[in-house]
Amino acid sequence: MLTKENANRYCRQAITLYNNANIILTEAEKKKIEIADFGLGEFAKTGLSVLVYVNTDRCCAKELAMLPRQTCPEHRHPRIDGINPGKEETFRCRWGKMYLHVPGLKTKSPKAMPPHGREDAYTVWHEIELNPGEQYTLAPDTLHWFQSGPEGAVVSEFSTRSLDERDVFTDRQISRITKVAK
Amino acid sequence: MLTKENANRYCRQAITLYNNANIILTEAEKKKIEIADFGLGEFAKTGLSVLVYVNTDRCCAKELAMLPRQTCPEHRHPRIDGINPGKEETFRCRWGKMYLHVPGLKTKSPKAMPPHGREDAYTVWHEIELNPGEQYTLAPDTLHWFQSGPEGAVVSEFSTRSLDERDVFTDRQISRITKVAK
Repeated sequence: MLTKENANRYCRQAITLYNNANIILTEAEKKKIEIADFGLGEFAKTGLSVLVYVNTDRCCAKELAMLPRQTCPEHRHPRIDGINPGKEETFRCRWGKMYLHVPGLKTKSPKAMPPHGREDAYTVWHEIELNPGEQYTLAPDTLHWFQSGPEGAVVSEFSTRSLDERDVFTDRQISRITKVAK
Repeated sequence: MLTKENANRYCRQAITLYNNANIILTEAEKKKIEIADFGLGEFAKTGLSVLVYVNTDRCCAKELAMLPRQTCPEHRHPRIDGINPGKEETFRCRWGKMYLHVPGLKTKSPKAMPPHGREDAYTVWHEIELNPGEQYTLAPDTLHWFQSGPEGAVVSEFSTRSLDERDVFTDRQISRITKVAK
């Protein structure tokens, strides 16, 4: 589990990344940055920082910050009957570089590789490189994972309602809900 | 009607505003910035520049750029039966200043005033000041108008599906669909 000390340190690193991207946050927002480590306890390898700007029943906007070569593990946003036909999302790179992986033709010389020791939990290999100003829209229920480049990344996410707790991860060891030791 | 020359000039001014806000756009995006003059032919007074990042059946994200003291005129996003329960939108100020007006208690010393000669088309007087990093979420079908501060503004809009042609403006002279002379 994340210690409070580490969570605070990662939060400060996320704020530095947002500063790099010239994204202005209020003091209240800086305090609610989520350090998502997916329960694996190796945040710098598998994790990302998330700031939710707005998340209503209908739409959502977030700002994501990633340390260098950090990976958001493979997952999909399934249909939830009666609530949501599955989250649709657009990633827009604001700073740094992001390698997004989706189903499709395997990229021959990919720039990103799954975190060492966790390769079995990665199954889609079509790589899309997103540089600042570039974006990609994912249909609902599409498997995807992404990794930042050597400097890290700041990425805006525009989407339908976000229901993180319902995300389906390929890695069965993952728990999406962040837990920080008290 | 906007001349092509003026539309190009306003487009260059919008790009300068996006640069001020450190928002990176692709060359293709710069070419599709919409100069919305609402058919009034006084863009610098009543108008705004709009770049649509994504607009699907379910959600939408845009970047808005406003010249100093420019006004987006009063309107609402109505329910459209069978298509949309009305657009819900969040405005997040990125640069400059925005004065958003919504129904509610009349603000005593407002910083923004309707464009001269068009006061009759403005009916809501509760003013919300948005500085960089500040945001406000509007419920569907809520009358609103907004004006930038003395330097102008850059504002991100996160919303449900955008159906601009169905917006209802208080000013009956307004036509939302931009027309540029050929």
